[in-house]
Amino acid sequence: MSIFSNRITKLFNVDYPIVQAGMVWTSGWKLASAVSNAGALGLIGSGSMYPDVLKLHIQKCKAATSKPFGVNIPLLYPDIEKHIQTVIDEEIKIVFTSAGNPKTWTSTLKQHGITVVHVVSSSTFAKKAEDAGCDAVVAEGFEAGGHNGREETTTMVLIPAVKDVINIPVLAAGGIATGKQMLAAMILGAEGVQVGSRFVCSNEASNHINFKEAIVNSKEGDTMLSMKKVVPVRLLKNNFYEVISNAEASGASKEALKNMLGHGRAKKGMLEGDLVEGELEIGEVSALIKDIKPAAEIVQEIWDDFNAALKDPLCQNI
Amino acid sequence: MSIFSNRITKLFNVDYPIVQAGMVWTSGWKLASAVSNAGALGLIGSGSMYPDVLKLHIQKCKAATSKPFGVNIPLLYPDIEKHIQTVIDEEIKIVFTSAGNPKTWTSTLKQHGITVVHVVSSSTFAKKAEDAGCDAVVAEGFEAGGHNGREETTTMVLIPAVKDVINIPVLAAGGIATGKQMLAAMILGAEGVQVGSRFVCSNEASNHINFKEAIVNSKEGDTMLSMKKVVPVRLLKNNFYEVISNAEASGASKEALKNMLGHGRAKKGMLEGDLVEGELEIGEVSALIKDIKPAAEIVQEIWDDFNAALKDPLCQNI
Repeated sequence: MSIFSNRITKLFNVDYPIVQAGMVWTSGWKLASAVSNAGALGLIGSGSMYPDVLKLHIQKCKAATSKPFGVNIPLLYPDIEKHIQTVIDEEIKIVFTSAGNPKTWTSTLKQHGITVVHVVSSSTFAKKAEDAGCDAVVAEGFEAGGHNGREETTTMVLIPAVKDVINIPVLAAGGIATGKQMLAAMILGAEGVQVGSRFVCSNEASNHINFKEAIVNSKEGDTMLSMKKVVPVRLLKNNFYEVISNAEASGASKEALKNMLGHGRAKKGMLEGDLVEGELEIGEVSALIKDIKPAAEIVQEIWDDFNAALKDPLCQNI
Repeated sequence: MSIFSNRITKLFNVDYPIVQAGMVWTSGWKLASAVSNAGALGLIGSGSMYPDVLKLHIQKCKAATSKPFGVNIPLLYPDIEKHIQTVIDEEIKIVFTSAGNPKTWTSTLKQHGITVVHVVSSSTFAKKAEDAGCDAVVAEGFEAGGHNGREETTTMVLIPAVKDVINIPVLAAGGIATGKQMLAAMILGAEGVQVGSRFVCSNEASNHINFKEAIVNSKEGDTMLSMKKVVPVRLLKNNFYEVISNAEASGASKEALKNMLGHGRAKKGMLEGDLVEGELEIGEVSALIKDIKPAAEIVQEIWDDFNAALKDPLCQNI
């Protein structure tokens, strides 16, 4: 395979412009190091980690790979100062921030020589991220799993819209699990992709096997952007989803919905494998995911599929 | 420009695998003939036409072009038998059916030598269309304007899912207004595209200029899939949208919502230009539409952009 080079591979110093999303209860050191060792960029997802747990994951990840890896920090994390201090102390080189204002921490991180990428769901926030000094953005379409924007703009429309207003590179996220989808996103204007759901179904992902198997068994229409009155989250439909969406449709207040959601729902579903009462955050592309395999094989499969599609975009050989 | 040929151009006998959607209050003989004359496939949208009006539009379209054109028939149209009889009597060669069961009329149409394409929003219905004898399907993603599926599957995920289960060709719809988006959709597995919103902003579209200008002025998040308790419709947000979506969020019944919707809302908005109380059906891609121009220019622009992207998919020359 020939060497590929663009602004994203140079920014992260990786072989492939593929980033594994830093997902709660999923993206620990095992997944991040496996992805980085395979030539893509692995991210530790700090959103479900206590500060000391994050420190431990970073140290284990360093021991497991000599390749670049990063940390995702949701800016609404309650102990945000501690997470920021941890990545500085541990000399992390790449931080992806999400769910918050990029102005707050970008300059602090940049002062420590950290490459900062912010996750957005609209061109308005992409511009704000650029203005805040970010090095790149992840533009995340409506089809993506977990927390999402209120505009409901899909990847097909979002990527050209974002590309149009910023000069820093765009990573596309949402609906991307194959190399063909990666190439499609890059034709739309992305210079790389962030892949989430596909890596949830990797051996190294720390989420529960019940959750992985539920994704493999899911089909179109089995995920839904839900809890819009609280904060929009895409999840796999289950009993918890039915209860909360029925309440929402019957006019339940934000407060009532928050109470129904309670605490620890995502942990219950994703880490502990409770498929009935847990919150199972995942993207629409789960309908296309058919197996659980090592993360390195996923990286290689996406990359090979991407290159095959690039050689013969219209499948005229088939 | 070199000749392009694939299953879709052969099926319709057109130069480019681009179809202009048969949209209510928009796609009359003027638009359909302009698109067909430009080398793509124009469709007359019969959903907003009385039977005698459809007959007139077909006759005028025949007078305005010698190129192939087709008729879109929503299968839930109240006078469906008359529309079917009209296309048979007028010796229409291509019919796109939507919003209904493809089993009901496909064989009748096929017996009269008509090419039949059915619009679907899931791979399950794509398979049913193939089983019913359709020649192709339009797979319409969540981002598309007007009536849509309940699964909310976006074009990025829907096209590979549909491609996977059928052998007849797939036309992608939803989120496609540029040649880059067209190429992205074709990399995902489509062999052509159906473009709606972009042609709403053509000179020849019969909808009101107020509506066209509202689309040009719209931005991301300005359309929303709405009225899910009745039938999901993507529309431009306005006063009517606010009223009905607030009612829906407060727990209004399907019956109450139907009463609020009333009759003639789409006509009021799209044809008569009432931007406050009318229903303004349009796709998410309206955020990327910046001008109103002749349909032939739109066709050529998409085609040129498609070919440029095909030559240099990753924009490495830029």
